[in-house]
Amino acid sequence: MEIPVQVRFPTSTALGPNASEREIAQIADLYTDLDALDLQPLWTQNTRLLTKEPRPSAIPWLWQRSDLWRMADRCKDLITISRGGDRRVIALANPGLDGKPFATPTLWAAIQYLGGGESAPGHRHTPAAVRFVIEGSGTFTTVDGDACDMRAGDLILTPPWQFHDHANESDAPMMWFDGLDLPLVSALDGIFFEQFPHEDMQPVRGRNISEAFYGGRATVPHVDGSTASPYSPLLVYRYTDTSESLAALLGSSDAPMVSLEYVNPISGASVLPTIGCHAHRLAGKGRSAPRREVGSSVFVVFRGRGHSIINGIKFAWSAGDIFVVPSWACVEHSADVESDLFSITDRPVMKALGLYREVVEQQPQVVTGLFDVDARRTLVTS
Amino acid sequence: MEIPVQVRFPTSTALGPNASEREIAQIADLYTDLDALDLQPLWTQNTRLLTKEPRPSAIPWLWQRSDLWRMADRCKDLITISRGGDRRVIALANPGLDGKPFATPTLWAAIQYLGGGESAPGHRHTPAAVRFVIEGSGTFTTVDGDACDMRAGDLILTPPWQFHDHANESDAPMMWFDGLDLPLVSALDGIFFEQFPHEDMQPVRGRNISEAFYGGRATVPHVDGSTASPYSPLLVYRYTDTSESLAALLGSSDAPMVSLEYVNPISGASVLPTIGCHAHRLAGKGRSAPRREVGSSVFVVFRGRGHSIINGIKFAWSAGDIFVVPSWACVEHSADVESDLFSITDRPVMKALGLYREVVEQQPQVVTGLFDVDARRTLVTS
Amino acid sequence: MEIPVQVRFPTSTALGPNASEREIAQIADLYTDLDALDLQPLWTQNTRLLTKEPRPSAIPWLWQRSDLWRMADRCKDLITISRGGDRRVIALANPGLDGKPFATPTLWAAIQYLGGGESAPGHRHTPAAVRFVIEGSGTFTTVDGDACDMRAGDLILTPPWQFHDHANESDAPMMWFDGLDLPLVSALDGIFFEQFPHEDMQPVRGRNISEAFYGGRATVPHVDGSTASPYSPLLVYRYTDTSESLAALLGSSDAPMVSLEYVNPISGASVLPTIGCHAHRLAGKGRSAPRREVGSSVFVVFRGRGHSIINGIKFAWSAGDIFVVPSWACVEHSADVESDLFSITDRPVMKALGLYREVVEQQPQVVTGLFDVDARRTLVTS
Amino acid sequence: MEIPVQVRFPTSTALGPNASEREIAQIADLYTDLDALDLQPLWTQNTRLLTKEPRPSAIPWLWQRSDLWRMADRCKDLITISRGGDRRVIALANPGLDGKPFATPTLWAAIQYLGGGESAPGHRHTPAAVRFVIEGSGTFTTVDGDACDMRAGDLILTPPWQFHDHANESDAPMMWFDGLDLPLVSALDGIFFEQFPHEDMQPVRGRNISEAFYGGRATVPHVDGSTASPYSPLLVYRYTDTSESLAALLGSSDAPMVSLEYVNPISGASVLPTIGCHAHRLAGKGRSAPRREVGSSVFVVFRGRGHSIINGIKFAWSAGDIFVVPSWACVEHSADVESDLFSITDRPVMKALGLYREVVEQQPQVVTGLFDVDARRTLVTS
Repeated sequence: MEIPVQVRFPTSTALGPNASEREIAQIADLYTDLDALDLQPLWTQNTRLLTKEPRPSAIPWLWQRSDLWRMADRCKDLITISRGGDRRVIALANPGLDGKPFATPTLWAAIQYLGGGESAPGHRHTPAAVRFVIEGSGTFTTVDGDACDMRAGDLILTPPWQFHDHANESDAPMMWFDGLDLPLVSALDGIFFEQFPHEDMQPVRGRNISEAFYGGRATVPHVDGSTASPYSPLLVYRYTDTSESLAALLGSSDAPMVSLEYVNPISGASVLPTIGCHAHRLAGKGRSAPRREVGSSVFVVFRGRGHSIINGIKFAWSAGDIFVVPSWACVEHSADVESDLFSITDRPVMKALGLYREVVEQQPQVVTGLFDVDARRTLVTS
Repeated sequence: MEIPVQVRFPTSTALGPNASEREIAQIADLYTDLDALDLQPLWTQNTRLLTKEPRPSAIPWLWQRSDLWRMADRCKDLITISRGGDRRVIALANPGLDGKPFATPTLWAAIQYLGGGESAPGHRHTPAAVRFVIEGSGTFTTVDGDACDMRAGDLILTPPWQFHDHANESDAPMMWFDGLDLPLVSALDGIFFEQFPHEDMQPVRGRNISEAFYGGRATVPHVDGSTASPYSPLLVYRYTDTSESLAALLGSSDAPMVSLEYVNPISGASVLPTIGCHAHRLAGKGRSAPRREVGSSVFVVFRGRGHSIINGIKFAWSAGDIFVVPSWACVEHSADVESDLFSITDRPVMKALGLYREVVEQQPQVVTGLFDVDARRTLVTS
Repeated sequence: MEIPVQVRFPTSTALGPNASEREIAQIADLYTDLDALDLQPLWTQNTRLLTKEPRPSAIPWLWQRSDLWRMADRCKDLITISRGGDRRVIALANPGLDGKPFATPTLWAAIQYLGGGESAPGHRHTPAAVRFVIEGSGTFTTVDGDACDMRAGDLILTPPWQFHDHANESDAPMMWFDGLDLPLVSALDGIFFEQFPHEDMQPVRGRNISEAFYGGRATVPHVDGSTASPYSPLLVYRYTDTSESLAALLGSSDAPMVSLEYVNPISGASVLPTIGCHAHRLAGKGRSAPRREVGSSVFVVFRGRGHSIINGIKFAWSAGDIFVVPSWACVEHSADVESDLFSITDRPVMKALGLYREVVEQQPQVVTGLFDVDARRTLVTS
Repeated sequence: MEIPVQVRFPTSTALGPNASEREIAQIADLYTDLDALDLQPLWTQNTRLLTKEPRPSAIPWLWQRSDLWRMADRCKDLITISRGGDRRVIALANPGLDGKPFATPTLWAAIQYLGGGESAPGHRHTPAAVRFVIEGSGTFTTVDGDACDMRAGDLILTPPWQFHDHANESDAPMMWFDGLDLPLVSALDGIFFEQFPHEDMQPVRGRNISEAFYGGRATVPHVDGSTASPYSPLLVYRYTDTSESLAALLGSSDAPMVSLEYVNPISGASVLPTIGCHAHRLAGKGRSAPRREVGSSVFVVFRGRGHSIINGIKFAWSAGDIFVVPSWACVEHSADVESDLFSITDRPVMKALGLYREVVEQQPQVVTGLFDVDARRTLVTS
């Protein structure tokens, strides 16, 4: 016999078969009175709160390049970028997250579109951002006066609370992937935001300054009295370097996939305390081991063609697609041709807070379904 | 002219006064199509997402000792503790958090009641817990075989993923404050839970073992090859010691309030990576400086009488009351008589992730209202 | 046939039996010419430089309380303490160290004697010091204005570059053990020294201030913006606390010896980056496991009676004796009655530099000799 | 009136003019008796032990390329490399260090010569080594199976306790600079040494493996469960990269000298816990600021021509020269043409132990002398 649902929280505790009417009434009264005092019993919801394993609300999902570009194209004429911190940014909203514009509970994923000659004005915020250029070139992201040019495959950082703006100096439009820790910082009530004062764009001190200083191979400038920063002083990571390192790793390995992490050159830590960035190269044969980890990721397909199996569902992907792997989901990657993936992850958060776990499953997953873009609504609602 | 609300996300971008019907229709179509593809424009919600300062949903709130004890008393006869991880726990649900049983977005606060001779069975979970004994004695919390006795004013830790159970060996009921990082771990999709296998209660290896080993004054046992743990190996912090340290601090200071942090004796870090625990003694005169910080706290009044001003509202408190300070709220404390407060905070999280900020305001707050238990609903809804 | 010793460095390389006179002469010329250019061949001395295991010059040694007190007593009338950084300090000079006043290559060990009413003037230096009171009370060591009273069994720190002086306010003389990293800092060419300006003694801000602030049990004062220091902010560690902790450890253990480390309460690290301090209680039965470690130690017998076996030699000791354990020496301790030892070690240095190693030998040592104070010269010269 | 020098330690304490014969005799007896008990008074030597500033025994010194190559050339025919850990290594012996084969109290500096087709057999030791190739190519240093090829300007690491050997696969002889922490590890009694068992040379697993894995620009391989090592996993740092980074630094700066540090890519720390490695480019104009620091360095001139002023003495240098800067010496560098210097330093030791200090002097040094190779003996003895 269930407790009458007179209170707004779920009740899972069953009373015994011999519960008297009086007892039920008393409990109902108790719950009502607790509720009035902003108190809630744990015992009615402990099995929901304390699950055997993580049960993320976010679900595995994929957005196709064609959809992203088509929608961006429609936006470019209708939506102008005006002063006020605005950007022409389209967020990937995980269908499991109740309409919030978040890819996972901790990660924001979006595409940003800047037309030829357009610019996005300067501002700063405590959420940290990374930009990964999917296609194109000709745009500069200026961070604290350092104008970093952006080319396909490059990673550009805009660390917390540093003024940044974007300027497309070419005639052609440009689009890139934006990854932020906005959902996390928002959940932690740590959002601060400020527009660059007086002008749209901040003054430029120089071009690719951080690259000149910190872009070496395991060498860093010797500066008296400098101390390590929690975020990387290197703001740009070039695809030519990434590709060379991936090639060296793949050449030294028999594995179907090799991965590298972009790091803070003066500490070896993740580029940001809240976001780890990785590049992966798939050999075009074999399948990576089935792994689960606490923490979520967003993958951007940079080149190639293949699929990933996430919790038994097969997600086919090709260049320009973006997909989400929730916490504790089981994942395997496989490519038809040599392929490069870029990913962001909240793993540094999990590690810093002592919450990280990972397992490699003994058996490959059995594929139980195919992620079908057209039928995906059905998938969610089922 | 507003964009028609045909899409489920809020739209704040105003079109110009000369926007044509056609343009409005096109944008409406665009939003509908974006929505169908699980995409969301940033520009319609950026001012809500990126606020000048944190705008917590959680609100300052206070629960009175009399309410807590009265409700606990009613629970004790109606709700029995049965096998299955159940505990007679009543959570303090912040009215700003949409009915979730959480005190703040990161912290769980509750009272736990155990009748004379009762016991709460063994389990473990990745959320970490601290217990602060408000009144009474006679109960043991056993953590990984170490039976820690609990007395008024003591702090007891149950670190992540360690089996723990509670046993009241006395005839009298006992109640204590439970603080957990459950909301945070839940938001990060990192919950794991397990009951102690086969039996209700785990075997006891000894009593207060960690206290014998790690309870010294700045001395730790020398154990070959040991390494620091992310959480404290000392599981109990005695009120007699806390009180003595607070007295020494107050005696060396002219400040109206002195504070200490309970720390991990082998690293000096917060007792848990996700929860910091503090004790405060108010001199019974003066008012602490008005401070704001990123991160939320829950305060338990252990002894004394006074009030705190939080965002202009005066919260009167006395022993046994519990109150919440959300992120970036401005806070001042003042006591009528010498008073002790215990608090938990998510500050270690903010610091680990580089999100911590604090300011001391130049001017004391102007009191604009009084937190009135009876009228508090009004307060929330206004 | 040996290379003629025309050069000042040892030559161990043997020429073959068929070496010609001409070849020998050429090599002799080569060595002479190298020497003239301040060059030295490695191959003549590599077996001496690169040994299979550490071969310390320092040797195990013991100084008896009776000798130390007798000599201190003779000094007190003949040697007055005058301005100029002087102290009535008698250093324990390890006979293996070529007349240097050092106990080991890294550690200075001495006794310091202060007559009733005497004081030792203020100065500061980069070498760090610890003081362990063997007997008596009534003296204050003032460190940066904090007058720390010294009682038997207490440990007092005078961290690097902090002004310190000593004042005996009683009528009775007082003697304590001084442990410094002076040999190490000297070898590293890092010595700086300065007398307290203008006056003999620095002003006193208060008594036992650090104890009031940092003397809690795993609690530390909460101070805005404070950061961990490389040396402990707690300057005094009381014997009553040490003894209580040792008793708790011994009570929880079947081992013949328990040990604790005095730590920096805000980091859990050794009290100083260069000196670790430990207290040991021997149960009065059994023998500790035979251990070797890289790094040297000096032991002060605080109470009790027993012996230690060091590299096969048995060193009998009783209260007030001081003995040295060189690097990689094999050591076992055994007590006839419950006994307390205090020790300083350079282990933090070895760990910081990645040089630390330790082994526990499977078999107890065979005793091959007895350290005989009268016959000890013979021991050294043999 | 001086104390009679009947004791072996220096006595600096002067007795007053009215000291009686009896008093002098008593003190002489006291010192004799102390000496017999291996005790030494501090007051006779404190001004020598505790100096106002560091007074290194090591002196600034320079070895010329022509001398080094000439002597190496003479050695190559007379000294063969045989099994037994031998190497054809000529150590630079600082004239201030009493005939020890050490460049500074902490650093070993040497040149190593390997004839065409020769090899130096495998061994390992706890002292860490770095190799900097002054000229030539064609040699492999194999470290734990990873054969690292060595070319002019490259830095190669052989971390502590890793088996390493050298093989010259070319027909031409090769010479490089060896830098070790041998003096430090020796002073700390931490030397362990072992020959590679059974064979002269260890098996080769591959060529430049560490470079393929860790040679990226601020990217590191993602390996499950890996943890940071105290020494760099990257064993080779290429001159082409160093030169490119130096050029970028110089191009972004008006300074007469820019410096970079080679770092451990997974921690950003110095390449070894005991040795820091730096590269410097001098613009060929101006003079670096006069600096002092605690800790010693050895500089290798890789290319160019210039001079350094060390404690007022001008040391002219050109490619292939090696010079020493002792602790706390004042140093300025200046180049006639664009020049590259490589240096090793014990700074990581000083920082780890809290002993590091540095100052930049306000005024350039007045040159008081010229380091004259022919007249240098005079300099030492004066």
